[in-house]
Amino acid sequence: MADNKQLDEFGLIAELLAPLADNKAAARLSDDAARVAVPDGLELVISTDMLVANVHFPPDADAALVANRMLACNISDLAAKGAQPYGCLLTLGVAGNWDSAFLQRFVATLADGLKTYDMQLWGGDTVRANEGFAGLAVHGLVPSGEMLTRSGAQDGDDVYVTGTIGDGFLDLADLGPAYAAPAPPIGFGQAARGLANAAIDVSDGLMADLDHICRASKGRINVEAEAIPLSEAGRAYGDLAALLCGGDDLQMAFTAPPAHADILGIEAEKHRIALTRIGRFSASDAHEAVLRAENGQEINVQKRGFRHF
Amino acid sequence: MADNKQLDEFGLIAELLAPLADNKAAARLSDDAARVAVPDGLELVISTDMLVANVHFPPDADAALVANRMLACNISDLAAKGAQPYGCLLTLGVAGNWDSAFLQRFVATLADGLKTYDMQLWGGDTVRANEGFAGLAVHGLVPSGEMLTRSGAQDGDDVYVTGTIGDGFLDLADLGPAYAAPAPPIGFGQAARGLANAAIDVSDGLMADLDHICRASKGRINVEAEAIPLSEAGRAYGDLAALLCGGDDLQMAFTAPPAHADILGIEAEKHRIALTRIGRFSASDAHEAVLRAENGQEINVQKRGFRHF
Repeated sequence: MADNKQLDEFGLIAELLAPLADNKAAARLSDDAARVAVPDGLELVISTDMLVANVHFPPDADAALVANRMLACNISDLAAKGAQPYGCLLTLGVAGNWDSAFLQRFVATLADGLKTYDMQLWGGDTVRANEGFAGLAVHGLVPSGEMLTRSGAQDGDDVYVTGTIGDGFLDLADLGPAYAAPAPPIGFGQAARGLANAAIDVSDGLMADLDHICRASKGRINVEAEAIPLSEAGRAYGDLAALLCGGDDLQMAFTAPPAHADILGIEAEKHRIALTRIGRFSASDAHEAVLRAENGQEINVQKRGFRHF
Repeated sequence: MADNKQLDEFGLIAELLAPLADNKAAARLSDDAARVAVPDGLELVISTDMLVANVHFPPDADAALVANRMLACNISDLAAKGAQPYGCLLTLGVAGNWDSAFLQRFVATLADGLKTYDMQLWGGDTVRANEGFAGLAVHGLVPSGEMLTRSGAQDGDDVYVTGTIGDGFLDLADLGPAYAAPAPPIGFGQAARGLANAAIDVSDGLMADLDHICRASKGRINVEAEAIPLSEAGRAYGDLAALLCGGDDLQMAFTAPPAHADILGIEAEKHRIALTRIGRFSASDAHEAVLRAENGQEINVQKRGFRHF
């Protein structure tokens, strides 16, 4: 039998979440399913990302960090698809150390994030767990057929990234802001629809993520090492390979024809996004991203890093 | 750093799941989001259910049990909404003891279930976890405005349940078929659209679930104890209250006007569903379900039970 503390916490969560679900689809969570209409001419972009204690955040992590990273990881997927956030389901595995103060702070942070991203809470599931976890299934909207994918890159496309690369990795150690509260380029992603040919969110590490575009679009990306946008901390860090492969940036990488350079610059400015051209995509039998020094020489990097707490 | 075994398992899962995602929305999981069109005149019914080791299944549970219960808990939500399964996202927390034999059996069982329920796999997320978990976010389709809800019951409605009650509870102890591989009435649920006024899936325990209808529909349900459909094992068990409150039935309870009795019987037969009238809904200020003996006397039951392994 569950103890009373458990029942109280589940009641508290239901009570805290109901006001966030004040939309027609969720009807304040009065039912155990949401009813979602998709406007004519639009289709859904659907993705899900789960964060687990001891793997994606420390078991004693602050509730705001867990909520913000959960939101950002999921919104990042929508951003890179050019989708406008619509609604989400929340899955919460409530660990023993997630007391009511933790849950209140988690829900308050979630509420702020939903407002920031203009996303509805449609429902979810709360379960007990020895190890805490928190995830969303996010649903975005795009005009039918206009979702950005990994597979559309064209020979001669420029390759861009938003923001700076490596700060998620650098901020992991001390749970600094780029790790604890990332801000995926959700507005710019929508603006890039019709301008970008292929896109992906930078979550595994820039080089590994560009590899995905190369495989899906059947080509090679030459990445100019000196062009990679780094923060001051990144420039001071010295190990470029670690920054390029560390993951957790939650920025957006994409390819676009050179003719779109100016309009992309204007959109980036409008959305207050740093946008940097870092290389070129070429149709090729070698389906990979290659890092090159200024003299054109290949710089070897181990492309994918995993780590845990 | 993750060890090689971990990387191998994640690669294996991706490889095993890709053929299941052979639909336009998922494009064999080639991207990290699904693109889902909703046909004109229909809307989505969306729900999510997560199962956690040590809470919803034993940590050494057979992979087929985990997959079948995960499917059934989620399909059960769609059945009670009158929705036709459309597509789902899979979230898998891979525990250390989930080896490749486990994963293969899990995916094979999932594949069978998706075929049985005619549901597409659209995507998902696989993460490491010390404690295994498995969940779906399921999406069904209904004609716009026709989703069955908890709130539509009308004064004088008959109350029905499908199947038998208590077998999920009885089969929990030895992981028998009603617990290990439930079969929610998904086809009948769709047939009940337009015939039922309110519906819910029986998952918390019949009495607790009927309470939800009572609260949402603002009325009372008098449940006739002698009418509850029991299996042979249920009749032999002796403790009716335990069967009514034990949960895990994954049957459907609903209310419908007496005039629909005949057509409901025909639909039940068509879908090979046992259908039993168990009571009546009355508009009332007492928003609760009450169990009554043949002489009309109230039988007290503790309505909701939780248990874990």
